[in-house]
Amino acid sequence: MIRFGVIGAGRIGKVHSATIAANPKAKLVYIADAIPAAAEALAKLHGAQVASVEEIMKAQDIDAVLIGSPTGFHAEQIQAASNAGKAIMCEKPVSLAVDAIYQTLKVVEKNKSTLMIGFNRRFDPNFAELERRIRKGAIGEVELVTVISRDPSPPPAEYVKGSGGLFRDMMIHDFDMARFLMGEEFVVVNALASSLVDKAIGLAGDVDTAAVQMQTASGRIAVITNSRRATYGYDQRMEVHGAKGMLSARNVHNTTVELHTAEGTVADPVQNFFLERYGAAYAKELSTFIAAVDSGNRDPKPNGFDGLQAQILADAATVSWQTGKPVKV
Amino acid sequence: MIRFGVIGAGRIGKVHSATIAANPKAKLVYIADAIPAAAEALAKLHGAQVASVEEIMKAQDIDAVLIGSPTGFHAEQIQAASNAGKAIMCEKPVSLAVDAIYQTLKVVEKNKSTLMIGFNRRFDPNFAELERRIRKGAIGEVELVTVISRDPSPPPAEYVKGSGGLFRDMMIHDFDMARFLMGEEFVVVNALASSLVDKAIGLAGDVDTAAVQMQTASGRIAVITNSRRATYGYDQRMEVHGAKGMLSARNVHNTTVELHTAEGTVADPVQNFFLERYGAAYAKELSTFIAAVDSGNRDPKPNGFDGLQAQILADAATVSWQTGKPVKV
Amino acid sequence: MIRFGVIGAGRIGKVHSATIAANPKAKLVYIADAIPAAAEALAKLHGAQVASVEEIMKAQDIDAVLIGSPTGFHAEQIQAASNAGKAIMCEKPVSLAVDAIYQTLKVVEKNKSTLMIGFNRRFDPNFAELERRIRKGAIGEVELVTVISRDPSPPPAEYVKGSGGLFRDMMIHDFDMARFLMGEEFVVVNALASSLVDKAIGLAGDVDTAAVQMQTASGRIAVITNSRRATYGYDQRMEVHGAKGMLSARNVHNTTVELHTAEGTVADPVQNFFLERYGAAYAKELSTFIAAVDSGNRDPKPNGFDGLQAQILADAATVSWQTGKPVKV
Amino acid sequence: MIRFGVIGAGRIGKVHSATIAANPKAKLVYIADAIPAAAEALAKLHGAQVASVEEIMKAQDIDAVLIGSPTGFHAEQIQAASNAGKAIMCEKPVSLAVDAIYQTLKVVEKNKSTLMIGFNRRFDPNFAELERRIRKGAIGEVELVTVISRDPSPPPAEYVKGSGGLFRDMMIHDFDMARFLMGEEFVVVNALASSLVDKAIGLAGDVDTAAVQMQTASGRIAVITNSRRATYGYDQRMEVHGAKGMLSARNVHNTTVELHTAEGTVADPVQNFFLERYGAAYAKELSTFIAAVDSGNRDPKPNGFDGLQAQILADAATVSWQTGKPVKV
Repeated sequence: MIRFGVIGAGRIGKVHSATIAANPKAKLVYIADAIPAAAEALAKLHGAQVASVEEIMKAQDIDAVLIGSPTGFHAEQIQAASNAGKAIMCEKPVSLAVDAIYQTLKVVEKNKSTLMIGFNRRFDPNFAELERRIRKGAIGEVELVTVISRDPSPPPAEYVKGSGGLFRDMMIHDFDMARFLMGEEFVVVNALASSLVDKAIGLAGDVDTAAVQMQTASGRIAVITNSRRATYGYDQRMEVHGAKGMLSARNVHNTTVELHTAEGTVADPVQNFFLERYGAAYAKELSTFIAAVDSGNRDPKPNGFDGLQAQILADAATVSWQTGKPVKV
Repeated sequence: MIRFGVIGAGRIGKVHSATIAANPKAKLVYIADAIPAAAEALAKLHGAQVASVEEIMKAQDIDAVLIGSPTGFHAEQIQAASNAGKAIMCEKPVSLAVDAIYQTLKVVEKNKSTLMIGFNRRFDPNFAELERRIRKGAIGEVELVTVISRDPSPPPAEYVKGSGGLFRDMMIHDFDMARFLMGEEFVVVNALASSLVDKAIGLAGDVDTAAVQMQTASGRIAVITNSRRATYGYDQRMEVHGAKGMLSARNVHNTTVELHTAEGTVADPVQNFFLERYGAAYAKELSTFIAAVDSGNRDPKPNGFDGLQAQILADAATVSWQTGKPVKV
Repeated sequence: MIRFGVIGAGRIGKVHSATIAANPKAKLVYIADAIPAAAEALAKLHGAQVASVEEIMKAQDIDAVLIGSPTGFHAEQIQAASNAGKAIMCEKPVSLAVDAIYQTLKVVEKNKSTLMIGFNRRFDPNFAELERRIRKGAIGEVELVTVISRDPSPPPAEYVKGSGGLFRDMMIHDFDMARFLMGEEFVVVNALASSLVDKAIGLAGDVDTAAVQMQTASGRIAVITNSRRATYGYDQRMEVHGAKGMLSARNVHNTTVELHTAEGTVADPVQNFFLERYGAAYAKELSTFIAAVDSGNRDPKPNGFDGLQAQILADAATVSWQTGKPVKV
Repeated sequence: MIRFGVIGAGRIGKVHSATIAANPKAKLVYIADAIPAAAEALAKLHGAQVASVEEIMKAQDIDAVLIGSPTGFHAEQIQAASNAGKAIMCEKPVSLAVDAIYQTLKVVEKNKSTLMIGFNRRFDPNFAELERRIRKGAIGEVELVTVISRDPSPPPAEYVKGSGGLFRDMMIHDFDMARFLMGEEFVVVNALASSLVDKAIGLAGDVDTAAVQMQTASGRIAVITNSRRATYGYDQRMEVHGAKGMLSARNVHNTTVELHTAEGTVADPVQNFFLERYGAAYAKELSTFIAAVDSGNRDPKPNGFDGLQAQILADAATVSWQTGKPVKV
């Protein structure tokens, strides 16, 4: 039985808390949030107790800390939890500053803490199956990875100001998936981007439409495209072209219903909301973490190094976009 | 909070018990089973108590009885629960004997009991959406309903002997779906059937491959085909042809992954196991029952009349197959 | 070089004439039609000559007669062409009267004439591939054949009066396809039908919506559904369920374009017009006939016996619908 | 009636000659080829005469020259035909040297000649429909164009030496399609490429796997990926993401047949051969040219300017790949 303290009672904290509460191998003990009412409501819902972050770190009756606080707190909370001997599941990113990630990972390494980073898409049943088949050799050597990732609708321009920008806030997931599927690190990053969806996003110094190309030392190529707005739903697709074939994972539709009329054959819309689209992934992610802690596996993936590498690629893409030049990593 | 006694700790009893246990509006209080160890294991898993059927019927601390016992006990247990003032959720069928169903429904009516029958497929998100769109007029008047229903693999010939035969044991679900989608009762039933999959099924007096045509008083037509064996998975599809268009619901694949090679484009197999394929349906079915009991709705659908009508069609199809003639109902 | 006389300059005569004119192994020599202007226009288009039916039968400079005249003339023209030593390609049906077909086939047999019947769907690349795979054993023993066939829009009620009725005029093609895919003759036919699309069709003594079930001596089953109106295009699908798998052939869409919006993913409409949908089939049908005549193959399929069997099934279905009883054949 | 002289009796010359011969508005008069036997065979097949290139240019009885000679001859033959007052349909590219294209277009402009360039993919019914819908506003403003283009199998390394390289020989089509779909010129080109398929292609100084990103002045983005080898067939797909939706065009499969087994649902392979995949496109391309000449339209698209722009992008991509830097155009 893995006993959890959860930091953050916002949207993602709620998701993880419900998953912990429903997992027979886990127990939700404490909830912390800067907004007391939010912590109380969530604690009440799952029969847990409200605590401060400090209390969670010191608590002897928990084994693991789930960090779902705002990004700016991740690094210090990982370090505190690591120093307190807890296993750590932290939402991405570890930090918007690569230096802070290095420093955090040193602490984790010194303490030999278990640290898993919340790149939930690796646990999506479709993408996980795709990766599993690549590793089993279904398409031979990987040559070309394509990641298509588009959000249903853009965030407020106000939000993007503190987000680190599209490459660090949104494409970070796709950098992780490109690494996950490719199985080799990238050495060069090319980015093109614009604000086509909402001019206010451009005025806020960010972009909403972007393409990134990356290449590995052995010459393999990955292509990522992002848009902050897809009127047709949450567009999440992957394709991997290899020497012996190609593997793809399509979008997930609301139902299998199709309407046939003179206008055409209309498949139900694509799932629109990330909590629905990745519901199974969130559950699998957490059960993977719980199983790792339970079995004493100190290095479940994606780990801190995965968090670091994705951040390095996001930084490189940001610089490439800003300078109009390829960036070596 | 609806408090449940569950009768039957077999496969379907386990499914429903887990659903009840996970539903915040429901509480699992008692489990009964002819095999004490089965009842104990299930009770322990969910923190419930073991009880006899009689104890469940008499218990003052439960509101509803979920009947997942063998078919032969359904009618008497519904009557007992009704007489005891409980709400009743009963697996299909009410009885293999239409007379017993009539008698049971009289008791239910006299007591004004809430009775829902477990035709789970109505609650499948795909089929429910299909029906919802028909009722909203998406395809105008319904003219032709097609139900394709094929099991992954045949039951042992030994099983079919006590099952009532394919039409009452398997196609009963499809009769209910044809009624659900058509929205009008059928007046004539034509059946053709054979044992092509397993000769032993034929020797046991049953069939494993069957087609049924039915017509309503206004001339609308439904076609059902069944096979006890589909090598490609659990084949569950519906099509409804109307005056203004056609609605269809495809099979559900394990994942969205596709492999592209010189042999073709290979979509992942179709889901194979009924508990997986209809997992969401079982949960929705029970939450519908709970909501009905909670709100005082005494007639949630599918109700006892639906159970009766499906059984009448199954009987008619059986006679049609045996006599080689259409049967009026 | 096979030299043709074409009887009938209507819609189907035009299709076949163009195919003959474009085939390097064939030559279009004569065209006959009851309407002189129609014959002249078609002859002029392809550099052929106008002739009477009698002149075509007597002509020494033709090898084959293509019969595309109204149904009522088929039997006598086949006999005349056979007696004149010509190879014969005749549109379906040979005759609406089974007796006349028997008589005609006797003449053809006596003269050892080459006779092919225009069941064009056997030559559709999709259905031909499906059948080819069945015969190669891709799905093992065939158990259940499903033929879905729906026209885009109903004919005028006036037309149906002289058509022989839906089973002989429309479903005749599906009877042939069911035989083609099943590979075994049917021994019993069950029909249900109504006029749901156009009441005038019902008043004219015909139906526009129909379902037929048939069974072979070994117990295999075929199911056919027809509608005279499919708002979504020309619906032409087949499915064959076998012991080792299932083969299906979908509808053909106008293009591969899909539009993705919040309303769903909209595939281009299904092809609507039979000359477009079966364009490749008509060409392949005629090239098969030409190759047969050219190579001295006296029995290309579908032959007169195929025409006879389809007509017998159509008659049986008509009687089954009229009497409400199964008909043995 | 447009009378043609065809230069080149190779693979593409044969395709166009057959199309001309079958077009009732066109006549195939002369065929020229450096290999006399090739010219003779093709001329005989279609009832045309053999002539030298010079004779074709001087001939008074032709209206149009179709240039299907090796790339190195295109520019001079276009000029000669233009100076001789002929309409010109020329296979892509006009020239591997941009200067030669400029010079050629000047001649064409001076003579006011009709010149169309053989970017056949614009005439594919699927891609043409996709573009038509974009222009009609189906997805609002175009933001992101994706072109996926992969050949079934790589050419011999020997071939690539004289081909101008992947960007000029293969991706040239995709540059044209990106311009066609985007509707705005690109101002910057980023390329990444490798030889992953065949090391000999790398040793010959070329690549076989490539990704290109391009951006327009208004910030819109196009992404192209190429591989010289797709084991699953000729992969030709397009996607256009816009402000109001997304349009895509899938691959074309051999048939609509699907095989369903425990291994999955297997759609027929994707068409493998370019003459099959683009058969309809070649016919439509030529009928468009013929209609333009016939109606006096002096500027059918794609024209010489389109040929020039695609070549400029191909050169830029080549330089970007070689230098590892973005190239402005």
